[in-house]
Amino acid sequence: MRNIKLILAYDGTAYHGYQRQANAALTIQQLVEERLSKLFEHPIKLNGAARTDAGVHAYGQVVNFFTTGTIPVERIAMATKGLLPADIVIVGASEEPVAFHARRSAQSKIYRYRILNTRPPNPFERNYTWHCIAKLDTALMHQAAQVVVGTHDFSAFRATGGAPVSPVRTIMSASCQEMGNSIIEFEFWGTGFLYHMVRNLVGTLVKVGQHRVTPEGFAAILAGRDRRAAGMTAPAQGLFLIEVKY
Amino acid sequence: MRNIKLILAYDGTAYHGYQRQANAALTIQQLVEERLSKLFEHPIKLNGAARTDAGVHAYGQVVNFFTTGTIPVERIAMATKGLLPADIVIVGASEEPVAFHARRSAQSKIYRYRILNTRPPNPFERNYTWHCIAKLDTALMHQAAQVVVGTHDFSAFRATGGAPVSPVRTIMSASCQEMGNSIIEFEFWGTGFLYHMVRNLVGTLVKVGQHRVTPEGFAAILAGRDRRAAGMTAPAQGLFLIEVKY
Repeated sequence: MRNIKLILAYDGTAYHGYQRQANAALTIQQLVEERLSKLFEHPIKLNGAARTDAGVHAYGQVVNFFTTGTIPVERIAMATKGLLPADIVIVGASEEPVAFHARRSAQSKIYRYRILNTRPPNPFERNYTWHCIAKLDTALMHQAAQVVVGTHDFSAFRATGGAPVSPVRTIMSASCQEMGNSIIEFEFWGTGFLYHMVRNLVGTLVKVGQHRVTPEGFAAILAGRDRRAAGMTAPAQGLFLIEVKY
Repeated sequence: MRNIKLILAYDGTAYHGYQRQANAALTIQQLVEERLSKLFEHPIKLNGAARTDAGVHAYGQVVNFFTTGTIPVERIAMATKGLLPADIVIVGASEEPVAFHARRSAQSKIYRYRILNTRPPNPFERNYTWHCIAKLDTALMHQAAQVVVGTHDFSAFRATGGAPVSPVRTIMSASCQEMGNSIIEFEFWGTGFLYHMVRNLVGTLVKVGQHRVTPEGFAAILAGRDRRAAGMTAPAQGLFLIEVKY
């Protein structure tokens, strides 16, 4: 039995998120499982590193699966190109030890969040940014974001109704930069993220960028561990899973 | 009667091109005319600067129309935001003299053509680039492209079956550059372009980039005025109408 690791890039616009759902909604997991099952000629069950939500994108989602098939790993990307729709691409494949598990073996993840910060909407960015018209103070958002670096209880940025897991997470780095063309990018590198945590952080940091919350106020929100004190959940389409590290 | 000029940005992926068609196919002209007719409460007929094909995009398509309506030009972009789908955006509006005509008054146009030049496909570029796997020599394509600058008979790059207009056009500048992230961009600034001319130029310049045609061979193709000697028509989704100058 071979244990195959795949790196997936996908445009999440057309899907109801990564994870297979009980109802008929089309998800990335379901679609990739179906197409790989055809290719390998037996049912394939994927373990995914992250449960990206509907509309969330990935440059480096990682999955693994077991197969008795003999297709060499270097052929998988090419062989699936015609099987998968153009918005899902296998960008890497490797054979791993039997103990490798895409989610449980993950050491850390990098997420990016993109904002379009200009008055006119941009038709090419509509599915890949949060459109914020009011001018944002990028340097102040970057400064405030440094507060989350380290090990903290992130209850203030946790989705209500999420799984009952520990709210303590470690963030190695957080940044906010202007990228040109009115695009602002946040990047968070951490050992793990609570459900909606990046989107809740961004929704609150945008209030800092609008000078409605000070960096000190942002630090107090984190320390207060009260979700109601934080800002809105930033919309899904600005979020990208960039990389999963092992 | 006011003569209103609009600048439109659109993602052409979902449309059968700019120009209204006799059949039921959805076009950008038809959709914008319908929505503007609602806003101005009388039938609106648009004159468009360029007939972009199905799948071709625009940052700066220009249209004009006449209206008895009194909506101030500075309010039009905002007022149409909710009326138009997110893939069509009015990015500018101004009132012009009665003689202004989006197509006939145009002095020159700038087109861009984008290529993704790397082996793995990129799901985020699938609708906005031509995916060319073989490594392209950007510097050589830029060198060859200089041949088209000036006034020439472009019969070699004219679509078979196009309108019986003069094949002589003047190109002010042509460039080919690497933009990072494996993207190569061509840009052509000219007084006018024949039907499919940019896409035929790019389809032939890519053969130069693959070292299958020399820059001298490319010059000979232009001089020979024979469409059969040139390369393929590059696919529509890499093409962007950037600006129309008046």
